[in-house]
Amino acid sequence: MNRLLVRDLAQLVTPAGTGAPLRGRELGEVELVSDAFVLCEEGRIAAAGPMQGLPSGLGELDELDGRGLVAIPGLVDCHTHACFAGDRVDEFSLRAAGASYEELHAAGSGILSTVRATRAAGEQALTDAVRRHRAWMLRAGPTTFEAKSGYGLDKDTELAQLRAVRAAGGIPTWLGAHAVPPEHPDADAYLDFALAEVLPEAARLAEAADVFLERGAFDAARARRYLTAAAGSGLALRLHGDQFTEHGAIPLAVELGARSVDHLEATGPAGVATLAASDVTGVLLPACALFLDRPMPPARALVEAGAAIALATDFNPGSSFTESLPLVCSLAATQLHLSPEQALGAATVNAAHVLGRADRKGRIAPGYDADLTLLDAPDWRYLAYHFGHDHVVAVVLAGERAKLG
Amino acid sequence: MNRLLVRDLAQLVTPAGTGAPLRGRELGEVELVSDAFVLCEEGRIAAAGPMQGLPSGLGELDELDGRGLVAIPGLVDCHTHACFAGDRVDEFSLRAAGASYEELHAAGSGILSTVRATRAAGEQALTDAVRRHRAWMLRAGPTTFEAKSGYGLDKDTELAQLRAVRAAGGIPTWLGAHAVPPEHPDADAYLDFALAEVLPEAARLAEAADVFLERGAFDAARARRYLTAAAGSGLALRLHGDQFTEHGAIPLAVELGARSVDHLEATGPAGVATLAASDVTGVLLPACALFLDRPMPPARALVEAGAAIALATDFNPGSSFTESLPLVCSLAATQLHLSPEQALGAATVNAAHVLGRADRKGRIAPGYDADLTLLDAPDWRYLAYHFGHDHVVAVVLAGERAKLG
Repeated sequence: MNRLLVRDLAQLVTPAGTGAPLRGRELGEVELVSDAFVLCEEGRIAAAGPMQGLPSGLGELDELDGRGLVAIPGLVDCHTHACFAGDRVDEFSLRAAGASYEELHAAGSGILSTVRATRAAGEQALTDAVRRHRAWMLRAGPTTFEAKSGYGLDKDTELAQLRAVRAAGGIPTWLGAHAVPPEHPDADAYLDFALAEVLPEAARLAEAADVFLERGAFDAARARRYLTAAAGSGLALRLHGDQFTEHGAIPLAVELGARSVDHLEATGPAGVATLAASDVTGVLLPACALFLDRPMPPARALVEAGAAIALATDFNPGSSFTESLPLVCSLAATQLHLSPEQALGAATVNAAHVLGRADRKGRIAPGYDADLTLLDAPDWRYLAYHFGHDHVVAVVLAGERAKLG
Repeated sequence: MNRLLVRDLAQLVTPAGTGAPLRGRELGEVELVSDAFVLCEEGRIAAAGPMQGLPSGLGELDELDGRGLVAIPGLVDCHTHACFAGDRVDEFSLRAAGASYEELHAAGSGILSTVRATRAAGEQALTDAVRRHRAWMLRAGPTTFEAKSGYGLDKDTELAQLRAVRAAGGIPTWLGAHAVPPEHPDADAYLDFALAEVLPEAARLAEAADVFLERGAFDAARARRYLTAAAGSGLALRLHGDQFTEHGAIPLAVELGARSVDHLEATGPAGVATLAASDVTGVLLPACALFLDRPMPPARALVEAGAAIALATDFNPGSSFTESLPLVCSLAATQLHLSPEQALGAATVNAAHVLGRADRKGRIAPGYDADLTLLDAPDWRYLAYHFGHDHVVAVVLAGERAKLG
């Protein structure tokens, strides 16, 4: 039997588990054990707790010395665009130096510039890219990640993206409605194509469908059409909503029973109340708001109203070029005014709910997948407190020590 | 002869060098060489440029393979409080969760809590702490760092801090006027003590003196008294100014010929104009503004007015717990709206000027110290663009490859 004992951990911390996304007071509840062990068997956590409760007579097993280290559940990044080719460093530099939207457009920037690079790359290069990004994530903290298509917007590239994500160990989301590519005259014509030509195969590769509901992208009526068709093909539903303007994303998410509505930088009090009264999780992406120098989402208002929230990186080359979910937890503390405990719950249990994996991911408890991130820090809250620092010294993935690049 | 050849670098980038702090248009000027080498001899840069210009017949030397890597000048962190004991993670967590100032005070937080821990630590523990922080910095990008005292505020601990910084390879600044410790009845009585009892020996250990000019700390009259005495003992002058409120820091810095005035989050148009017309460098600390969720300093206005600016981390346990100057460069781009080129100049050449080392630090050019940071990135601007990522794969320090922790 494949067994690993992580022993003598200075601290082990895990969020509460209630079977549902954590809300309100629950979100700040964590279980903290000092001088702890985690026993992994066949890829799952068999037992975890204080060293004095370590079962005797365990027989032969591998050991990982946890002295001076802190174990947290492997973080769950539930919103990334990790499958892309090329970069947007020119656009970033021009924007930093104050270039106008028109100047950026003239320089060929934006989502469609990544679409051009991604279409040209070929499936092997895309798979290599996701694998490289996956290695970055493991070093940063996440052990489970979602990644979207949406830089293909033609049949071959969208499907290649979804396969690439799957091949690199990610959870694929079909973001067929990310932008309207130039070969279609308008959004309706593009959706005609995408739903007829891409959805049938995308539905076999992806677990969820996502749409960019925003002025200049897809409006609520088109988002409803896209998501309704996707649900009919068995996909779970997600939305990019309220990033720049409120255009009905939250009511639509609630109406359609979506798993999440993501961004929410522009969400006002009515949206907060609607989301809080629903089963939809709000996914907050403060690294994107930072990268674009936009307002932060109303995290405290959402938590206080009782909404379920998750945190994610939004890792992508145009609006959030970071894989660091720990940095996102730090931004959650300093910019969103969440406690480290709330940030941890939002980046583990609640993110796992968004991905439909809350029974297996996001906690250190018997029966869960043995995915652990070990930090070299005197207190687990350094995850948020000590920012811009590489805390991760070891990662356990499905009960085995992962090789870090 | 001790020689190292860094060869086949994908890119080499260095800011302009004019002999003075870079201002206005100069700040954005960098020299970029593709397919480059750097030849280091006896700790200095002997030559650098395109591979086709590599001198022949170099004889025996060590080589470092730069393929796929980018070389930037070792970054210069000109404002840190890297000599401290303890941490402020409780305060951070309480503040994140919305605790009021009174609640934080009741929890024993603030600078004086670090003073208590630092006084109790002993000189060896302080030296070990600065060495540990120095190792973090090398991994992050800085090869040269300043660190202040100011967590002792008694004679023994202040001097121990300065020695610890020196022992760990840092450039010590005497921040004798950081706060008023509880054993003195008021700021005047404390300055009586500090200038009579600490300054004479601090002046032999430190290169500069610094003061926290702020409501609740030291006012302009007391700062003038402290700095004038320090200048009389041969120390260069620096000020913490305009962090929360404007209380005359910039005019005082100009009047006394200080090297820098640091923070400037609260600086208004008059202060910008005064600084721009002077030889004083404004040191901007966006990671501190982020950590405390405070307004960012008016960086663009300063640059456009012609002021010299530098960037630094403000690394400290209470208001900016990061050693990552690359993250600061990223914040410079996204929050201060500086280009990557401007950020690089501000974190190298201009920071070196603040530390009185611009003849030796901050550029890759013959005669400069051979301090290089090698990044695994396809473009040197990833330093700012790809944030929260550990780019550094190798560091050359005084012409030798440094061991990274």
